[in-house]
Amino acid sequence: NVTNLPFWNTFDVLNFATIDEEVAKLLELKAQLGGDEGKHQFTLKTAKGTRDYNPKQMAIREKVFNTIIGCFKRHGAETIDTPVFELKETLTGKYGEDSKLIYDLKDQGGELLSLRYDLTVPFARYLAMNKISNIKRYHIAKVYRRDNPAMTRGRYREFYQCDFDIAGQYDPMIPDAECLKIVHEILSELELGDFRIKVNDRRILDGMFAVCGVPDDKFRTICSTVDKLDKMSWEDVRSEMVKEKGLSEEAADQIGQYVSMQGGKDLAERLLQDAKMSQSKQACAGLTDMKLLFSYLELFQVTDKVVFDLSLARGLDYYTGVIYEAILTQNGPAPEAGEKGEEGVSVGSVAGGGRYDGLVGMFDPKGRKVPCVGVSIGIERVFSILEQKAEVRGSEKVRTTETQVMVASAQKNLLEERLKLTAELWNAGIKAEVMYKKNPKLLSQLQHCEDSGIPLVAILGEQELKDGVVKLRDVHSREEADVLRAELVEEIKKRIADV
Amino acid sequence: NVTNLPFWNTFDVLNFATIDEEVAKLLELKAQLGGDEGKHQFTLKTAKGTRDYNPKQMAIREKVFNTIIGCFKRHGAETIDTPVFELKETLTGKYGEDSKLIYDLKDQGGELLSLRYDLTVPFARYLAMNKISNIKRYHIAKVYRRDNPAMTRGRYREFYQCDFDIAGQYDPMIPDAECLKIVHEILSELELGDFRIKVNDRRILDGMFAVCGVPDDKFRTICSTVDKLDKMSWEDVRSEMVKEKGLSEEAADQIGQYVSMQGGKDLAERLLQDAKMSQSKQACAGLTDMKLLFSYLELFQVTDKVVFDLSLARGLDYYTGVIYEAILTQNGPAPEAGEKGEEGVSVGSVAGGGRYDGLVGMFDPKGRKVPCVGVSIGIERVFSILEQKAEVRGSEKVRTTETQVMVASAQKNLLEERLKLTAELWNAGIKAEVMYKKNPKLLSQLQHCEDSGIPLVAILGEQELKDGVVKLRDVHSREEADVLRAELVEEIKKRIADV
Repeated sequence: NVTNLPFWNTFDVLNFATIDEEVAKLLELKAQLGGDEGKHQFTLKTAKGTRDYNPKQMAIREKVFNTIIGCFKRHGAETIDTPVFELKETLTGKYGEDSKLIYDLKDQGGELLSLRYDLTVPFARYLAMNKISNIKRYHIAKVYRRDNPAMTRGRYREFYQCDFDIAGQYDPMIPDAECLKIVHEILSELELGDFRIKVNDRRILDGMFAVCGVPDDKFRTICSTVDKLDKMSWEDVRSEMVKEKGLSEEAADQIGQYVSMQGGKDLAERLLQDAKMSQSKQACAGLTDMKLLFSYLELFQVTDKVVFDLSLARGLDYYTGVIYEAILTQNGPAPEAGEKGEEGVSVGSVAGGGRYDGLVGMFDPKGRKVPCVGVSIGIERVFSILEQKAEVRGSEKVRTTETQVMVASAQKNLLEERLKLTAELWNAGIKAEVMYKKNPKLLSQLQHCEDSGIPLVAILGEQELKDGVVKLRDVHSREEADVLRAELVEEIKKRIADV
Repeated sequence: NVTNLPFWNTFDVLNFATIDEEVAKLLELKAQLGGDEGKHQFTLKTAKGTRDYNPKQMAIREKVFNTIIGCFKRHGAETIDTPVFELKETLTGKYGEDSKLIYDLKDQGGELLSLRYDLTVPFARYLAMNKISNIKRYHIAKVYRRDNPAMTRGRYREFYQCDFDIAGQYDPMIPDAECLKIVHEILSELELGDFRIKVNDRRILDGMFAVCGVPDDKFRTICSTVDKLDKMSWEDVRSEMVKEKGLSEEAADQIGQYVSMQGGKDLAERLLQDAKMSQSKQACAGLTDMKLLFSYLELFQVTDKVVFDLSLARGLDYYTGVIYEAILTQNGPAPEAGEKGEEGVSVGSVAGGGRYDGLVGMFDPKGRKVPCVGVSIGIERVFSILEQKAEVRGSEKVRTTETQVMVASAQKNLLEERLKLTAELWNAGIKAEVMYKKNPKLLSQLQHCEDSGIPLVAILGEQELKDGVVKLRDVHSREEADVLRAELVEEIKKRIADV
């Protein structure tokens, strides 16, 4: 009876190939659906251009932030915070062609949002929204750019900015000078090696373009090309101006003479006498302010690191006066080929900023202006350098906890006593750890202290409990001494203060 | 000649109405495009459910964070940081029906990303990715939920979480007890008024459901209904179980008896003897651990605030053992009608957490498990309460800067001398401010000190410069004394230490 045969018996031999094929297809489909047990294979990674910070990196980060915040507070700054995303329209029209690097949120109904691209635009929005015309504030937070990451060199898609800004109508160049003083203090304190701070002024650049014969509508694009001088030769920059941007050869050559100039107050004085430059009112205003700036920098004793450099242009559109940029002159890996920093910041750049007197007015319903000047410390590159230094010095020297004492025991069945003593120490404000084991070995408790740099061990035993004492051990010297239980907290505080 | 007439002359009078209509339409379109002058009207606001922090709010925030971080460090924790967004698939399948509240980023090419919804899932991803099986870490960062904001009550779409977690295979209930000790310490130190910490165990809940006759496949959904007991009456909860979730009336009534129970170690002991409860192996395991937990809590002296409460369920799926939640029992505005906290956290909830032994295994390619227990402090509500308190006390008492001394002058033309002295103070580590005016009035300089709480003023004048002294003024007492310039830094440090 044919119907009793298994169904595959009804196929002829040639069909076995077809069956194998079908089986293979089904297995492939199963694999696509997640393999056996429906166990989904996660991609175990962070998003492109981002990273986790492990405890050692966090310890370094905390130290750097403390230095920077300490400086900002020394200069009397308050701090604010803004949300990580803004209405998309708040960011529109602020970053020129870099706008394509903004992260947008998915439209899930409601408002259209974007991740902040810097802290300056949210700051300007905050001032306009709250009608604030006077503030000195710092803001340390992450910003987001869909850029090509170069993570080994400290270039990420999610990165910290440390911004300090002074908003308000004041006498010229005094807040501007303080911003430069702050850069000088922070870079000195962080001990990153020698550095230089280049200074220029948008009015000087624009005046220079005018007297060199650059048409008005080409100022910004020629400015962008000049901005490339820190990583392209003059020949290449000149060629871009003439061939790509359509500038005349004469104009380009005249620009070439100016942008090779570097100096200090003397250069500003010289250019004020320059036959061509002095024809531009704008340039003269910028040069007069540059002289004044340098006189304040002399009072602040920071002129050793500051250079008036006519080739400094900076990428962002919103600057209206003084601009500056700090670069490390040693240290760090060589630039990658073709790499170009954000905002026209050169590869070695660790800080930048300038005056932007028009940005708040872009947000104010009545166009009311609030003059602002500020600086942004680009901290990721600093982290990279300090992490590499820590690596070289040997990583065991970076402590990731602040634990002062480990509560241990040499004998069994003392968990309760250990927990009780630990709670006593916590309640007295002592930083204390205890192992989460009923009967840990003394050696493993001591080993943990060695590994994580805990300086003291409070050891409990039957005898100590009977005598009302605790054996206090110095991990480094291995010396031990019995301390009265009632005096333990004071003794630990004394020992810690001595270290 | 008809063709020489203006074109509108060819319309008859009736058509003027049509023209007016067309003009109105065009004007409307023009208005939509931004009105006259092309001046775009920005919507000056932050995204829905988010807020800026002004300097006063930041000062409060800093104080709260210092308290919390101080506690975490006292317990020997390291810290890590993770990116604000994760691969979308990392968050998939972790939050049950709350997944709809996740913010996705727009697909701009490349990976699909989402903003983190909590710090626990990124932590588990971090552990699996780095093959870490042992760590005690804290993480303070913002998380994002597209929830209905209730901002006056501290419910935002962008908000901080302060997480402390212990990962590792340890003896039972020791790390769990430390988490509760930490909640107790932090809530006591923040002085938010009286509080209570409810504790339960997922194994006790599941055992209870089993012995009450809840079918296996209804455990999670019945658990969600139980979770509503802190803001719905038992009658309403019972009705939801029976009518919406199809539970039998007998089962519901049996659950009703258990979930009304509250107590301590004694309750755990009593339930271990309970004829029905003792039939569940799971419940017995949970109850035995609950007894052990309370014995450790007694050693930590925190049982005054901790209650074993069988109605505590918590929303998140990933808990596997002990769960807890801290509520303030006084203080703060009344709950809004129908409001329900995230993760099933009650409205007055300020901290919550529990044991999640399976989450890391969901990320590990080999399913390797890392047992974890942790707690999350919900800081926004704490901010709300402390901000209201500051408001009541009078806002002038919250200082937003730490400036110690204002460098001032009573006479004109002393800007240079003021800047020089200010720089000297900065270089000596003194927190100093100077007015950005050439010739500010002494009164306005003193007024600034009063307004922002600066305790000292260093006053320069022609006579003082001649005599090599500085007049140091105490803003509060208005006393003035001449101090030798060379001794100024020491004198300021002494005065500050005395305050």
